[in-house]
Amino acid sequence: MKKSSEKLTDINQIGEFGLIDLITNDFDIVNDSTELSIGDDAAILNYKNQKTIVSTDMLVEGVHFDLSYFPLKHLGYKAVVSSISDICSMYGTTKQITVSIAISNRFKLESIKELYSGINHACKRYNVDLIGGDTTSSLKGLVISVTAIGCTTKSGYVTRSGSKPNDLIVVTGSLGGAYLGLQVLEREKQVFLVNPNNKPDLSKYKYVVERQLKPEAKSDIIEFFLENKIKPTSMIDISDGLSSEIIHLSKNSGNGCIIYEEKLPISQETVDTCKEFKLEASTIALSGGEDYELLFTIDSKDLKKIEQHKEFSVIGYVTKESNTNLITRDGKTTPINSMGWKSF
Amino acid sequence: MKKSSEKLTDINQIGEFGLIDLITNDFDIVNDSTELSIGDDAAILNYKNQKTIVSTDMLVEGVHFDLSYFPLKHLGYKAVVSSISDICSMYGTTKQITVSIAISNRFKLESIKELYSGINHACKRYNVDLIGGDTTSSLKGLVISVTAIGCTTKSGYVTRSGSKPNDLIVVTGSLGGAYLGLQVLEREKQVFLVNPNNKPDLSKYKYVVERQLKPEAKSDIIEFFLENKIKPTSMIDISDGLSSEIIHLSKNSGNGCIIYEEKLPISQETVDTCKEFKLEASTIALSGGEDYELLFTIDSKDLKKIEQHKEFSVIGYVTKESNTNLITRDGKTTPINSMGWKSF
Repeated sequence: MKKSSEKLTDINQIGEFGLIDLITNDFDIVNDSTELSIGDDAAILNYKNQKTIVSTDMLVEGVHFDLSYFPLKHLGYKAVVSSISDICSMYGTTKQITVSIAISNRFKLESIKELYSGINHACKRYNVDLIGGDTTSSLKGLVISVTAIGCTTKSGYVTRSGSKPNDLIVVTGSLGGAYLGLQVLEREKQVFLVNPNNKPDLSKYKYVVERQLKPEAKSDIIEFFLENKIKPTSMIDISDGLSSEIIHLSKNSGNGCIIYEEKLPISQETVDTCKEFKLEASTIALSGGEDYELLFTIDSKDLKKIEQHKEFSVIGYVTKESNTNLITRDGKTTPINSMGWKSF
Repeated sequence: MKKSSEKLTDINQIGEFGLIDLITNDFDIVNDSTELSIGDDAAILNYKNQKTIVSTDMLVEGVHFDLSYFPLKHLGYKAVVSSISDICSMYGTTKQITVSIAISNRFKLESIKELYSGINHACKRYNVDLIGGDTTSSLKGLVISVTAIGCTTKSGYVTRSGSKPNDLIVVTGSLGGAYLGLQVLEREKQVFLVNPNNKPDLSKYKYVVERQLKPEAKSDIIEFFLENKIKPTSMIDISDGLSSEIIHLSKNSGNGCIIYEEKLPISQETVDTCKEFKLEASTIALSGGEDYELLFTIDSKDLKKIEQHKEFSVIGYVTKESNTNLITRDGKTTPINSMGWKSF
């Protein structure tokens, strides 16, 4: 938070065009496909023979984020990452984004700069160009809408519906951390509300809090796939929780799956924090959202190709029957239900 | 408005996925370039050798529209039209849109259906495919974000910066109507607040109210250009008012202009309504926004080609000097200032 003694600038002091100039000044164009960027009625992209991929997300203050513990810079970063993650899950490369924001008059110029510095940070990290957007007033709170635009590779794209029986089900990274990070931040907020002088010590929760505040999109995994000629048969990113995404892949492909509880990748810090919160780590790994890991299926003959990469965990396989089942640690079979995070 | 006796449906009764299914059921895909639409993490578009055009807008209740006199169906239609208009002004054809909405719990399923029926109506009228979006909760009011995606024609695209001295400045249709429509609707709202039994008679204001509530994008003009091999040297759509857009074209092209007041196209109903509101018709034509007409410059040798079309008015010409001037009816020269509508 800025100190109250610092002089903050009202947005209407510089106007909409002043704001746009100020925001876009720091952004560079790095992609050849961005032929015309901000400054006209629309942007012009040149993908030549490659197909265009488009995905869009809307984030609302009080619904998707709480600014009392979510720094604006991280919020800007995460909004972009979440959009890039959708393009990754199509086996594509993000090249451009548009960002529209609606802001209430409680937001000063300095806050908007913070937000866009996070957006810029993500653009630089992922080689993405900001090519357009809209800035407007809101009656209450902050609304961010990000559209990510990318292109397919020469190997085509991957949908949710391409898996076949006996394909292996694979997940990247580890699961449940982002959800627990949110629990930690929510708890600290409550402590702060009771005693504002209480300084929170988050050092024990560094990993899970970072998973919540600064997630990454798995563009490096797509590059690994391309280099190693691996094309998943279906793929999705884990934004609403593993259970929910597994059901999407199964429904869209018209088959089912067996998932092994013991194979779920969960970090030690996630396990420890779960104990503290009296939560079951496997449940959190299955239903916690916002990890932005990739869930995909591959032909079993590709197993060797992915075994060399430490990020991958084979967690089960695709079945002909349409049931989605979990085999628990004690060998019981239990149906997987969608328990993912919902915004309604 | 629905009668209060009618039973309305809470969104959370059907959930986000139910809502998406319900919304998208009525939408057809009409463009070959839409290879993969709603239902995956992103849409896939195939523009082959044509370039991609992208534009995005955000509309906020209480800032851009007032639902007490703006029917949701019209709002959906206008949100799409406004985006298509941006693609038109690049000399392009809109093929796809994404629509994201944030809705407070005061909106019931029936209202959302109304909104999307307007969106669908615009999609059908302009042969545009709805390929994605996001639906989420808001803390207050309705927020709509539309991204329009289109492709350039074989003749390339037209920016704001290509005019040269002695090019003719041309505008389509008539100006100021949408702004006056808004004044009429605002006045009727005030009358209604004082006496709710007072039935407004809007028959005298049919044209201006329609200009506000149901504007159209000028895609037919782009088709006319292509058929007649006319390529404007610069172009913009009039969303913020003629003055403001003229200044954009001049600044971007590095030149100036002379505009003749007597040439400004203003409908008789606009003139009559201006008198009633004690407004100067030329001022309204210059500064009233939301007409979504096209403002463009052409080489003077193309004059013959556009004279056949009744929609065009030549209102002035481009000058080498960077001043933007208006020649009034009584022959005086006065500078044109940006007096367009602002959302801040």
